[in-house]
Amino acid sequence: MHRSGVSRSPSIAKAILFAAVVWLAGPWLFAAPALAGEPGGHSDPIAPIALTLAVILVAAKLGGDLAARIGQPAVLGELVVGVVLGNLGLFGYTGFEPVKSDVFIDMLAGLGVLLLLFEVGLESTVGEMLRVGLSSFLVATLGVAAPFALGWAVGAWLLPGASVFVHAFLGATLCATSVGITARVLQDLGRSRSDEARIILGAAVVDDVFGLVILSVVSGVIVAADLGSTLSYGAVGMIVVKATVFLVGALALGAWLSPRLFRLASKLRARGVLLGIGLAFCFVLSWLANAVHLAPIVGAFAAGLILEEPHVRDFVERGEPGLAELVAPITAFLAPVFFVVMGMRTDLRAFAQPGVPVLAAALTVVAIAGKQACSAGVVGRGIDRLSVGIGMIPRGEVGLIFANIGLGLRIGGRPIVDAATYSAIVAMVIVTTMVTPPALKWSLSRSRSRTVDGR
Amino acid sequence: MHRSGVSRSPSIAKAILFAAVVWLAGPWLFAAPALAGEPGGHSDPIAPIALTLAVILVAAKLGGDLAARIGQPAVLGELVVGVVLGNLGLFGYTGFEPVKSDVFIDMLAGLGVLLLLFEVGLESTVGEMLRVGLSSFLVATLGVAAPFALGWAVGAWLLPGASVFVHAFLGATLCATSVGITARVLQDLGRSRSDEARIILGAAVVDDVFGLVILSVVSGVIVAADLGSTLSYGAVGMIVVKATVFLVGALALGAWLSPRLFRLASKLRARGVLLGIGLAFCFVLSWLANAVHLAPIVGAFAAGLILEEPHVRDFVERGEPGLAELVAPITAFLAPVFFVVMGMRTDLRAFAQPGVPVLAAALTVVAIAGKQACSAGVVGRGIDRLSVGIGMIPRGEVGLIFANIGLGLRIGGRPIVDAATYSAIVAMVIVTTMVTPPALKWSLSRSRSRTVDGR
Repeated sequence: MHRSGVSRSPSIAKAILFAAVVWLAGPWLFAAPALAGEPGGHSDPIAPIALTLAVILVAAKLGGDLAARIGQPAVLGELVVGVVLGNLGLFGYTGFEPVKSDVFIDMLAGLGVLLLLFEVGLESTVGEMLRVGLSSFLVATLGVAAPFALGWAVGAWLLPGASVFVHAFLGATLCATSVGITARVLQDLGRSRSDEARIILGAAVVDDVFGLVILSVVSGVIVAADLGSTLSYGAVGMIVVKATVFLVGALALGAWLSPRLFRLASKLRARGVLLGIGLAFCFVLSWLANAVHLAPIVGAFAAGLILEEPHVRDFVERGEPGLAELVAPITAFLAPVFFVVMGMRTDLRAFAQPGVPVLAAALTVVAIAGKQACSAGVVGRGIDRLSVGIGMIPRGEVGLIFANIGLGLRIGGRPIVDAATYSAIVAMVIVTTMVTPPALKWSLSRSRSRTVDGR
Repeated sequence: MHRSGVSRSPSIAKAILFAAVVWLAGPWLFAAPALAGEPGGHSDPIAPIALTLAVILVAAKLGGDLAARIGQPAVLGELVVGVVLGNLGLFGYTGFEPVKSDVFIDMLAGLGVLLLLFEVGLESTVGEMLRVGLSSFLVATLGVAAPFALGWAVGAWLLPGASVFVHAFLGATLCATSVGITARVLQDLGRSRSDEARIILGAAVVDDVFGLVILSVVSGVIVAADLGSTLSYGAVGMIVVKATVFLVGALALGAWLSPRLFRLASKLRARGVLLGIGLAFCFVLSWLANAVHLAPIVGAFAAGLILEEPHVRDFVERGEPGLAELVAPITAFLAPVFFVVMGMRTDLRAFAQPGVPVLAAALTVVAIAGKQACSAGVVGRGIDRLSVGIGMIPRGEVGLIFANIGLGLRIGGRPIVDAATYSAIVAMVIVTTMVTPPALKWSLSRSRSRTVDGR
């Protein structure tokens, strides 16, 4: 046991030292002199991506460690470390700016959240989801209606000079739930298989359909009003039909197809067939979801739900690891990229824009309060309603997508979402995203200690 | 046992049917109508990447299955299925053409081969490599010298009208070994921990340094001759010094740093720390390798060598899986992308260019024969020399990188590598890459059956 060289105790100091080294090394690493001028040799485009990934992974683990030390889910630490790295520009260090808009890192982050939802989906079955289906549907309905009405009201109150379309659009941006954060918190806490988790995740799927409809209607109305024409209800109807057909079709056809597909695949004589075909299944459903205008993560989650252990029995019986076990390391690699980058992209300057704080505060309050209406949608006993309401809070990237669409929409030459409103929406997204991990951790541990005998 | 719906026998027919469905679905999937015109909704850039990955994964598993059925390593099937998909353009189907130049897929393929070499590196230690170090060095030296001389001779013989620079450049393109193919074949056959594997992989590292030097010198001489100046030996010397310092430094400093780094990391209270920090270590060394003009995979392989089981004992002792086990599913996902895409990029039309076949055949013969000189470099008993020579054959993407540099070099206004010579090099790369998996499988099984008592 020759461990004398390294002391085994105060490791926080060392972690900070380590972080400091990473930080100090950062400028040199990211601003490494261009080597292309020297003669010959390889210069592989993978190299800068590899370096960026290394920095993100180390940052994610340090952030996760700090979060764990204060009893919070790791994802909060990943987000916070991302916010810190992404806002070093406020202190004059801009070495991480290129990472925010790096298309390759963005793609890996996108794959990470896709696989996270796939993995979480694998932990439930279609049957288990249908069992809480009514709750999910009611939760989603209330969780869209209340924030929409409240957002509209806040707009009418604080932006009285703006058109009714602006008010409606503000309501729309408050509707959608970003399920990535909640899914990850539930995973961090080992609660992905609870009824609360299923209700929230199911509601997030329904919510995505509703959000799609509302966004289509609101932006369709605005475009039509600006052009002096009327909204094509037929086009909006088609969107709803497509999304519904996809969801029902994927679950029904997928449940029929999946055991047959995997039984066939189990006859393929190659290593890694289960993982390869499982991922392909996830990717195809993600693509199909996007093709009907739903979020790709909805497709990935559906793929996870459809795939059940009996379907892959032929693989497991011959001693191969299960699909969830195979996907876990890939998610462990890529999901932190998503959360760190999400943190990096939050611009803290949004809070400091003139005129923004009041609107931001009001939007944040109604964004959080509005989703608490979800509690009323939970049917059945022994389910922690508060946790469901909290789990629906984060707006994450979905709120930003809405806001960005608003930046591009114009009515009478003026954008629906102006710079100040955009900053207020960004601030709302930051707060709802950051507040969820600790709040959900608190409410779930509270409900667990209350019901530990009843279960 | 309700398996009545699906017959359990002739599955080849089904696999073909499945492939046919994928093929027929291809045009529709890849040429899916642009949906951007419809109102509202998400349109996530991850969706087309997900679909492409799904097609590649299914193709890889079908190819791997076919290879296994004829007793070949899976990687041969992945290459062949890639060649088939990539050359469907010859039959008028161009749906896969965009995949060949997709930068995202290229990046994932690059990550895949990086992680493959990291994983293979994890299976050996620095000490085990040094034990065969003399053999590796001699194998690399002979494996560079012989093909260089033979390639030059072929150039002088078949291209008598071209300048001596062209002949030298042809020799240079024959030097480098593409170790990805061999590493994968050794992994497919479960022989990554054999002495033959270590000699080949060590030789490939040394080979990369030699190849770097030769390419630098040859292209430096050509550029200098074209400009009427002389080669800067100082610049070439610096390249050699940097590469050597990196390799020696990485192995020495890394071996010192790695146990300390991972003992520190084991104190981080977050999930997935071992994988996260392990991957970061691999990525940093890959980046450093590239910074000194070596291939990133050399850095990834070095990272794998440096990381040894005792370093991560703290993780494994508390019941976490080992690093190799965690990396394996990520490699299983991404490495096939590399090999299928490598197959897709091989343009079979290279064989049909006028004037090419003779040069292509001569280059291929000397490329294969030249590397057989490697056998003479093996020191020690009980090692299958033929397998070492065969393992060094594939030129893969490294040969293509050389050829591409040649396309860009000019002497007296004429490119060093013209279109016909380029096609001949491509043909040589295809043949050396394709011939290695079956040849290595044959030679290793032959040597194993011969020495089964002696070991």
